[in-house]
Amino acid sequence: MSFNTSGHLFRFTTWGESHGPALGVVVDGCPPGISLTPEMIQRDLDRRKPGQSKYTTQRREADEVKILSGVFEDERTDGPRTTGTPISLVIENTDQRSKDYADIRDKYRPGHADYTYDQKYGIRDYRGGGRTSARETAARVAAGAVARQVLSGISIRASLVQVGPHKIDYDNFDWDQVGENPFFCADAKAAALWADYLDGIRKAGNSVGAVIEVVAEHVPAGWGAPIYGKLSADLASAMMSINAVKGVEIGAGFEAASLTGVENADQMRAGPERPYFLNNHAGGILGGISNGDPVVCRFAVKPTSSILTPRQTVTTANQDTDIITKGRHDPCVGIRAVPVGEAMMALVLADHALRHRGQTGREGAVGFERN
Amino acid sequence: MSFNTSGHLFRFTTWGESHGPALGVVVDGCPPGISLTPEMIQRDLDRRKPGQSKYTTQRREADEVKILSGVFEDERTDGPRTTGTPISLVIENTDQRSKDYADIRDKYRPGHADYTYDQKYGIRDYRGGGRTSARETAARVAAGAVARQVLSGISIRASLVQVGPHKIDYDNFDWDQVGENPFFCADAKAAALWADYLDGIRKAGNSVGAVIEVVAEHVPAGWGAPIYGKLSADLASAMMSINAVKGVEIGAGFEAASLTGVENADQMRAGPERPYFLNNHAGGILGGISNGDPVVCRFAVKPTSSILTPRQTVTTANQDTDIITKGRHDPCVGIRAVPVGEAMMALVLADHALRHRGQTGREGAVGFERN
Amino acid sequence: MSFNTSGHLFRFTTWGESHGPALGVVVDGCPPGISLTPEMIQRDLDRRKPGQSKYTTQRREADEVKILSGVFEDERTDGPRTTGTPISLVIENTDQRSKDYADIRDKYRPGHADYTYDQKYGIRDYRGGGRTSARETAARVAAGAVARQVLSGISIRASLVQVGPHKIDYDNFDWDQVGENPFFCADAKAAALWADYLDGIRKAGNSVGAVIEVVAEHVPAGWGAPIYGKLSADLASAMMSINAVKGVEIGAGFEAASLTGVENADQMRAGPERPYFLNNHAGGILGGISNGDPVVCRFAVKPTSSILTPRQTVTTANQDTDIITKGRHDPCVGIRAVPVGEAMMALVLADHALRHRGQTGREGAVGFERN
Amino acid sequence: MSFNTSGHLFRFTTWGESHGPALGVVVDGCPPGISLTPEMIQRDLDRRKPGQSKYTTQRREADEVKILSGVFEDERTDGPRTTGTPISLVIENTDQRSKDYADIRDKYRPGHADYTYDQKYGIRDYRGGGRTSARETAARVAAGAVARQVLSGISIRASLVQVGPHKIDYDNFDWDQVGENPFFCADAKAAALWADYLDGIRKAGNSVGAVIEVVAEHVPAGWGAPIYGKLSADLASAMMSINAVKGVEIGAGFEAASLTGVENADQMRAGPERPYFLNNHAGGILGGISNGDPVVCRFAVKPTSSILTPRQTVTTANQDTDIITKGRHDPCVGIRAVPVGEAMMALVLADHALRHRGQTGREGAVGFERN
Repeated sequence: MSFNTSGHLFRFTTWGESHGPALGVVVDGCPPGISLTPEMIQRDLDRRKPGQSKYTTQRREADEVKILSGVFEDERTDGPRTTGTPISLVIENTDQRSKDYADIRDKYRPGHADYTYDQKYGIRDYRGGGRTSARETAARVAAGAVARQVLSGISIRASLVQVGPHKIDYDNFDWDQVGENPFFCADAKAAALWADYLDGIRKAGNSVGAVIEVVAEHVPAGWGAPIYGKLSADLASAMMSINAVKGVEIGAGFEAASLTGVENADQMRAGPERPYFLNNHAGGILGGISNGDPVVCRFAVKPTSSILTPRQTVTTANQDTDIITKGRHDPCVGIRAVPVGEAMMALVLADHALRHRGQTGREGAVGFERN
Repeated sequence: MSFNTSGHLFRFTTWGESHGPALGVVVDGCPPGISLTPEMIQRDLDRRKPGQSKYTTQRREADEVKILSGVFEDERTDGPRTTGTPISLVIENTDQRSKDYADIRDKYRPGHADYTYDQKYGIRDYRGGGRTSARETAARVAAGAVARQVLSGISIRASLVQVGPHKIDYDNFDWDQVGENPFFCADAKAAALWADYLDGIRKAGNSVGAVIEVVAEHVPAGWGAPIYGKLSADLASAMMSINAVKGVEIGAGFEAASLTGVENADQMRAGPERPYFLNNHAGGILGGISNGDPVVCRFAVKPTSSILTPRQTVTTANQDTDIITKGRHDPCVGIRAVPVGEAMMALVLADHALRHRGQTGREGAVGFERN
Repeated sequence: MSFNTSGHLFRFTTWGESHGPALGVVVDGCPPGISLTPEMIQRDLDRRKPGQSKYTTQRREADEVKILSGVFEDERTDGPRTTGTPISLVIENTDQRSKDYADIRDKYRPGHADYTYDQKYGIRDYRGGGRTSARETAARVAAGAVARQVLSGISIRASLVQVGPHKIDYDNFDWDQVGENPFFCADAKAAALWADYLDGIRKAGNSVGAVIEVVAEHVPAGWGAPIYGKLSADLASAMMSINAVKGVEIGAGFEAASLTGVENADQMRAGPERPYFLNNHAGGILGGISNGDPVVCRFAVKPTSSILTPRQTVTTANQDTDIITKGRHDPCVGIRAVPVGEAMMALVLADHALRHRGQTGREGAVGFERN
Repeated sequence: MSFNTSGHLFRFTTWGESHGPALGVVVDGCPPGISLTPEMIQRDLDRRKPGQSKYTTQRREADEVKILSGVFEDERTDGPRTTGTPISLVIENTDQRSKDYADIRDKYRPGHADYTYDQKYGIRDYRGGGRTSARETAARVAAGAVARQVLSGISIRASLVQVGPHKIDYDNFDWDQVGENPFFCADAKAAALWADYLDGIRKAGNSVGAVIEVVAEHVPAGWGAPIYGKLSADLASAMMSINAVKGVEIGAGFEAASLTGVENADQMRAGPERPYFLNNHAGGILGGISNGDPVVCRFAVKPTSSILTPRQTVTTANQDTDIITKGRHDPCVGIRAVPVGEAMMALVLADHALRHRGQTGREGAVGFERN
């Protein structure tokens, strides 16, 4: 990953600012012959779309994707198919409130990248945070939808597992619940509690952090490229690149530090066709390579930095001042990070699927669509 | 990062197996005119070297580095200086016990990458774990020593902050203590307790995990390359690529999930020359770019998988069996991961120092050595 | 360069097909604070635009560029300035004649990539050649215009120096003539002769090849990244990647093979501030690094493959047949390759300018715009 | 290609200076399970080795290669096999004459990179040219031998086709002759004439340039990665990166500029299994993708810059002076560039073989060794 491009064989490059005319992504290196329609992409975009509940920003964006290149259809292709050339996806920005930006133009918002962008570039598009806005994640989700098509047979799902100090009870974990509440939460009881909790946070002009868990099932053993392209390292980079993320863990993660070798070892038993593991502390990755078990990744999102409570800050002229970040902000940005986490998992896996096939000539991926 | 190379402008490529004749690294893109002697590298290698206490493997390796290219000295250079060409560093393997490898040849060691390497490559150098051995980290430490020379003025230090369930008390935190105990621990009291604890673990033929904290001070504001080359993302990838690491966090990390926006915001005040922050929950990084505060990164290491307690596993022929991993193993691999974490921090920062200078023409780095 | 992205620090990614809704490019890694308006880009696009004389395709395309991201303007920026974030440029396709594509759908056009795309991808957008169309070069020219802004002070010009067997006379070489004839030719006399010659070729339903010379002046000494990122190697790759190019040479090029060491040596003399060269057989590059002399690169373009003379070919079902490629084709694609060659030179130089600054901390570039 | 690394999936990184202790290469991304012995590499190294005739430098180097990593052998592997991990190859420098370097330390040798390295890096290992020495090509040849093993079934051969003004007669072209003369020349008659010609050149203390033709047969259709990773573009970059190369062409190359579309078109006919071409002006590449015909690449090498005839130059202090480059130099460096050209062809093809397989899941390569 470097600059605004990520991936080695299956690559994507995102562009666009919060208040520019549009944002988008170019997906390059996609296998040819994959079925791809705007609907397949829109499905995921709609899950990330703002304004779907009182727990997310009230900004109204259709987030309608257009496919400008890389797919082709004629009477013989049975619907639009990727051609192996770059897939350009564009999403127009439609709800850019015209407003006075003087406040964020002249003041640095604590927790935001205003100060660091000025330090790095000496110039900053401050309208809605410009390039640093979480709107950039729409482009990731669009690219991720393409990756999902490449990874047919592999299931990638995510759930919010913690909001503020409140964690879910894994005994209640049910993937079917994720679509039933505004938090993408697999624990219905936790979701109910979070509703009240977040109401309070929101009314107090405050915000909270969260933890998201992403799980990829049916990933074949053998994906990953040691030493510096480990599947775990690429997932860490991918998740940490999401706005506001401050931590990433695989499998047992930080909990592994407290375990003994006897406890942590995922013992193996002979299966009918191949061995299986008695536990998955490894999170499906050993030595940076997938072991056939579900790939389990969690990441922590800090609380929304834009809050209605006044905070101390400085002006761009290095003068003390205060700031209240008005606007339409998520009380918990972690909620909308759920589909983004799924997208990043899909993008990393698609890249490793192709890299593995390239180096070794092995498919690995059971369900991975042949071209 | 991809395959066995890491970095974009300041790049390094490692090679070698545990029981091959040697291992090494090629550092490419290093600025010219940097002072570099074998002693500067050996200093760091000696800290990672095995066999220095009963808490690390008793394997005896001199880990003596040779510089085969990339530096030049004559009567006008005031000692050896980098030339801007690739720096090849080689370390010979000297203590490869000749032994019977039949056991690990025919059985998969739980927690190790034996099974995944076989699944990926269909062939595996099982002698001492081959490429998956933590001996590879010697090459990282050697490369990291070169990066430190590039980053003059920037201080990079690390401490073990947790062993098994036992965390340090940050009130006792004193960098000067790191060199005074066999655990690279900044809390003398914790180190004393860990000594007894680890004795018990070792005698029980068991092992434990750990957490390492790496801190880089005097990093100028402005380093980092959004969106997919964020300083935080590259650190996450770098630390996660270290053997046995299962989690990485920046600043408040996972704790940030429990905080509110009011608590988490690092408020700013006007300083004499530039603004400063009242806290560092951000760990010195905002929007993927350094903000001038110390860059703080923690990573979790799982317990050593090689233990003397028999574990259930399977043979390469998918038959149930048990295994006891004899040999000279660290009861806590986290200890020797401390200098490795420092090296990875240095390598990531050196790369971003050059990338920032390349794109923006700004030095940023106050102390960053001019050529 | 890989897939549809080129460059290491100053990078660009192109996308789009001949008959898709649009084509475009994302320029990443551009220095911040550079002045950039659509007019600056349109200027170069208009030179490449089709339909400007009877010697180029009659396809009518406005080739109007839109800047969708990466520039920002407010009352303090003195016009639009780059922000250091990705610059997305889009050009709509407006003149896609609806026609029957059955002929090129079912037959392979000799000299085109129809057969190889089918062999590689198993699917092909045959409308106007799809991704293989020379329309892709519009995106290069747009990106090149951005690179020119980065390289202020460096002059990049090109001239057609051969059409079919007819070469220019360097004694008549005058850069001012390039804008005075439809061939971008610095030799007015040659241009006059080519006019008649090409009329004959066109009327005969035939086509011819050409040679373009690109010259960059005021390139500072020191740009280039040995060994595999030599300035000469990157130029060779850049020019060879242009549609229909079959050869590239630097300085004396193939002529150097016939020279002796005594003849070929560019002897040096002491200048007032720095040494200078008595000749430029090297084409401004020694050991892959610029030496301060003009960088001189030539490339050969094969004749347009689409001709009205029937040629033998096969169907996609491997049946013998003939084909006449109707349509609006350039009798000499080399003509419109002139601005494309300039763009590629600018793109390669901009990348090396940043890479050199990144590794060495030296500006090199005399006129290279400071941020 | 960037800095000292080349390739995208099949990658290699070279290091080392002419008068350092050793030089070498790390080959990364090699498919596992490939048979590889030192002898397979030595075979190619011995062809490039100096001192084999009076027409090449009399420097005596054994150029003995050691494999330090990446291959493994046990009773089940049927000889040494690649493991998919980095292959480190090292060649010691044994014949570094201790001599007085004051002359080239203080003077810039015309035609060499002395001046440009000083301008770029401000420091230079002048002993034997340091990193700019053609000794670096030994590392390429070693890496190329690994690539050949990956490309089993593909034949890669090269011939010297021009020395100074004297070209071969293609009617005499016979690959079997290449091993029968000291020039790697497929035309026995030309070789005989060159012998006398080069004797004269050498005795006159002069040198000449040359042209090498490299041909790869049985390359399957479909290899190459448009737009900026075209097979032709990567070959151009690869060949241009070889010391002293000033021009590269594919198929008809510069001659294509003089041809008409009618003459240049490689017409197609239906074959028993697949179509075939009536000519190969394309040099086996259409649209940057291989078409199944032999891949034909030629490159021009300038005359050796180190000659015994005094040339005008300047001192590092910018003072006029003369220089005679004494030492053991090739009167025609083009001769030893023949095996180097073969190696670069193999390296580019191996990379594209894996890239094609990765993106498309198609083997393409008929004889390309399965793992």
